[in-house]
Amino acid sequence: MKTDIDFYFDFISPYGYLASTQLERIATAYQRRIEWRPFLVGVTVMKIMGLKPMMQTPLKSDYARLDKPRMASLLGVPLASPDMSRSNSIAATRAFHWIRDRDADASVAFAKRVLHRVWVEGRDITPPEVVVEEAAFVGVDATELLAALGTQSLKDRLQREMDATVARGVFGSPFFIVDEQPVWGVDRLWMLEHWLRHGHWQRE
Amino acid sequence: MKTDIDFYFDFISPYGYLASTQLERIATAYQRRIEWRPFLVGVTVMKIMGLKPMMQTPLKSDYARLDKPRMASLLGVPLASPDMSRSNSIAATRAFHWIRDRDADASVAFAKRVLHRVWVEGRDITPPEVVVEEAAFVGVDATELLAALGTQSLKDRLQREMDATVARGVFGSPFFIVDEQPVWGVDRLWMLEHWLRHGHWQRE
Repeated sequence: MKTDIDFYFDFISPYGYLASTQLERIATAYQRRIEWRPFLVGVTVMKIMGLKPMMQTPLKSDYARLDKPRMASLLGVPLASPDMSRSNSIAATRAFHWIRDRDADASVAFAKRVLHRVWVEGRDITPPEVVVEEAAFVGVDATELLAALGTQSLKDRLQREMDATVARGVFGSPFFIVDEQPVWGVDRLWMLEHWLRHGHWQRE
Repeated sequence: MKTDIDFYFDFISPYGYLASTQLERIATAYQRRIEWRPFLVGVTVMKIMGLKPMMQTPLKSDYARLDKPRMASLLGVPLASPDMSRSNSIAATRAFHWIRDRDADASVAFAKRVLHRVWVEGRDITPPEVVVEEAAFVGVDATELLAALGTQSLKDRLQREMDATVARGVFGSPFFIVDEQPVWGVDRLWMLEHWLRHGHWQRE
């Protein structure tokens, strides 16, 4: 029984974006659907795991600065390097789930636009107005979404999503679950492909 | 100008052991030498980075418990699962550098024995007596090494090694540096191989 590939990522995670550029090719090759599941990785890392954000962690931040453009080059995709120190993906993530509950295809198109805006164009996606602007491009009613973004019911919707995400053991971006197998990291796409090809973890 | 592959790892790191089972094949294929560089990853993670040990980090510890046997299976090598909660690699790492300063080949043979003892046989390597026992198998004078293990000069020797390790930006186990390119993680052996094959980070 083939399940979807659950694709967990944060819009403000460069490695999440990098994974998004590869995943459709992989899913198509192995005839799987992708379920896009943006979440707030900062909440997981800081509140649940008790760690610092990657770019505030000594040594690891230097490595990441060097590694991000290198990984983009290896994957053959563009990668901007915007200053993310004041950015967050709360509005974008709420908007995604609001759209997802109404139109799955539009939510995927929206996710791709948001990732493109940050990681190809190098522009911020923090303000709700910007998020709504991107949503309008995929046919979402801007006024309706902007009103929804501030509501308690949408906050609760994202909270339920976050609870379910943590309950599944997801802690990083990107993070994939397929056939109940968790795989963390864009550097492990080879491992995801191994599972999709073989359905086991033995050596080829 | 081809440099050695600097192979940083901690004896008590299962992922370091897993990398050690693959690296000689890779190095031979691309005609590189390996410089084995055991260090104390707990010092880096806790004192420099301010993080918790992996197995005490919520979510990540559950993932690692599932991932370690899976990665061993993918690589086709055995992996024991000893209780490491009271283990440390201080004596083994000091012993390694003491041996390394006297006989490079013996130090590599010693490192392999220690890794085998922990990660294949599932036995502890914390006590100095055990470390010395393993060293004796590769021709080291047990009495001389046991006496050296408690000396200030050997403590200082390891401290200098740790300082140099951190200065090079190393923070995890395993960690590879070749031609000044840092690569972190057994899940990135493919990336190390890409560099060794091509000498650049562009897509093939």
